[in-house]
Amino acid sequence: MIIDCHGHFTTVPKSFRDWRAKQVEYADDPVNAPKRKDGAVLTDEQIREGVGGGQLKLQQERGSDLTLFSPIAGLMSHHLGNERTSLEWAEVSNNNVHRVTELYPDNFAPVCQLPQSPGAAPKNSIPELRRCVEELGFVGCNLNPDPTGGFWTGNPMTDREWYPLYEVLCELDVPAMIHVAASCNHNFHGTGAHYLNADTSVFMQVLQSELFKDFPSLRFVIPHGGGAVPYHWGRYRGMSLEMMDRPLEGLLNNIYFDTCVYHQPGVELLTKVVPTDNVLFGSEMIGAVRGKDPKTGHYFDDTKRYLDDCPALSDEDRSKIFEKNARRVYPRLDTRLRAKGK
Amino acid sequence: MIIDCHGHFTTVPKSFRDWRAKQVEYADDPVNAPKRKDGAVLTDEQIREGVGGGQLKLQQERGSDLTLFSPIAGLMSHHLGNERTSLEWAEVSNNNVHRVTELYPDNFAPVCQLPQSPGAAPKNSIPELRRCVEELGFVGCNLNPDPTGGFWTGNPMTDREWYPLYEVLCELDVPAMIHVAASCNHNFHGTGAHYLNADTSVFMQVLQSELFKDFPSLRFVIPHGGGAVPYHWGRYRGMSLEMMDRPLEGLLNNIYFDTCVYHQPGVELLTKVVPTDNVLFGSEMIGAVRGKDPKTGHYFDDTKRYLDDCPALSDEDRSKIFEKNARRVYPRLDTRLRAKGK
Repeated sequence: MIIDCHGHFTTVPKSFRDWRAKQVEYADDPVNAPKRKDGAVLTDEQIREGVGGGQLKLQQERGSDLTLFSPIAGLMSHHLGNERTSLEWAEVSNNNVHRVTELYPDNFAPVCQLPQSPGAAPKNSIPELRRCVEELGFVGCNLNPDPTGGFWTGNPMTDREWYPLYEVLCELDVPAMIHVAASCNHNFHGTGAHYLNADTSVFMQVLQSELFKDFPSLRFVIPHGGGAVPYHWGRYRGMSLEMMDRPLEGLLNNIYFDTCVYHQPGVELLTKVVPTDNVLFGSEMIGAVRGKDPKTGHYFDDTKRYLDDCPALSDEDRSKIFEKNARRVYPRLDTRLRAKGK
Repeated sequence: MIIDCHGHFTTVPKSFRDWRAKQVEYADDPVNAPKRKDGAVLTDEQIREGVGGGQLKLQQERGSDLTLFSPIAGLMSHHLGNERTSLEWAEVSNNNVHRVTELYPDNFAPVCQLPQSPGAAPKNSIPELRRCVEELGFVGCNLNPDPTGGFWTGNPMTDREWYPLYEVLCELDVPAMIHVAASCNHNFHGTGAHYLNADTSVFMQVLQSELFKDFPSLRFVIPHGGGAVPYHWGRYRGMSLEMMDRPLEGLLNNIYFDTCVYHQPGVELLTKVVPTDNVLFGSEMIGAVRGKDPKTGHYFDDTKRYLDDCPALSDEDRSKIFEKNARRVYPRLDTRLRAKGK
């Protein structure tokens, strides 16, 4: 089967976005803040309209089987509101994602957002993480390395303030996809700069650290093909040797890259320099780039096509990238699939 | 001939760095600040020792001929001190680079740093730019898109506050290499994250804008192989079409990438997706990655070797990347070379 490790619920109705805008507007006025029933809880019809006509349709057209589905990343916007609104927003967003996976259990498995907030301790996200994983069957989470939305005034992900959260990720055996939200810094376009910069920055934070000595079973998925990292693999190999006296491969028990790279030469480079065991198929459709390439007539974000066309990949390589690696990195997904006889 | 468009004076003596530390320490105490003669002016002997035994030696060993040479980028650190110390620091740094190029006129041509400072208007850098280009024969400049050193609280490079500086760049016909300095944000390692993030961010700022409609002859060189850009060429092609209704190629009269990508597959990707006319040979040696690749026995930053080994490049392609493009993008370099009969 073909598992897309990177999908967001980008097809929510406008009413849901409006509810969020109102929630933020009334962040300091809880009495007049909107009630959940007034737009935060989607109807089955709204979900079917968004996902059924969107991600599910494209999934089927492009020939993948199941998507790891999380709330829309840009809309997480942990920098808006406060810690209380972030929690409520995480809850309603995760609940809606859970409902998508209940309506389409064969096509989607749930990944949660966390109630991060600038200055709030990462450990404060533990209860929502536990609720999602232990009560609702989520198989992973998205972890925002910069809840400030592009000003990066918090601590690196190797700081000990993150450790309590990592302990629970290890205990629950769920990986974290490192994923920022919208950028409110006008120097950084969200999907054109902030996303890729975050991927690159966190990889380098980890390279400089002994994080995985402290957490040998912690797993990070770096999305968007790893930002700039595979393209600069030689730079990082050299820096890792010089700074840490450790081959870069020493990080690869814990770091994985998705394939959200929207052209053939990029996917070929990724699968050439990063070991096959560390690459997970992902498309992030319907996301940052929704159009078709006029040169090929195909969607830019139809990344399965690029993998199919990589001459250097064997069938076994593809089987790892499309399925086996995801089942290994997300063991709760594997359990879920096995329970269905898959 | 072979022109390396990206070299910094990283081999300055410790006394010069010490002088800078003292200058910053006494930034608000000009009476007790160090005098230039006490460490800011290098002796011929010091220059010969640093460059002669460093960049010049490697240049000859690796088979390139001339390097565009600028003050050490990390040490620019516009976030330190104030606008007055930034100016003095730019002057002494540029003067030393000028002396390198006087001592070794066949091997180095000068590129200047600018006296930027957080919150200072970019136009305040114009006098030092003019001094370097008009009086000392500099052929280009390094322009820091984030003088805050990693907090990015200033304006994008498409903001009109940059326009007076761009007018002078166009008038003088010198390109700007977009190059940040050291990072003081502990989320961003300097050469492992901040550099690449800046390259990516500025490319995206430009993509979203009509900057080159306003300045058709303005030229930016994006170093470090363009950050994440060529690896995500499909993403940017798609975004440019969607957001601006303009093919990405519409930027390529004004944007150039160097080849500071430290492994074979990266350089192959770069030269495959970016038109040959837009790629300039660069190594940034002696810089971020100084070691040898244990797999090949060669220096990671010996980028000439990767270009030599790209099977897809023709002799004419290499001639453009190694020489012709640099002479076209840096016309004052071309004039300088022609004056020497080269």
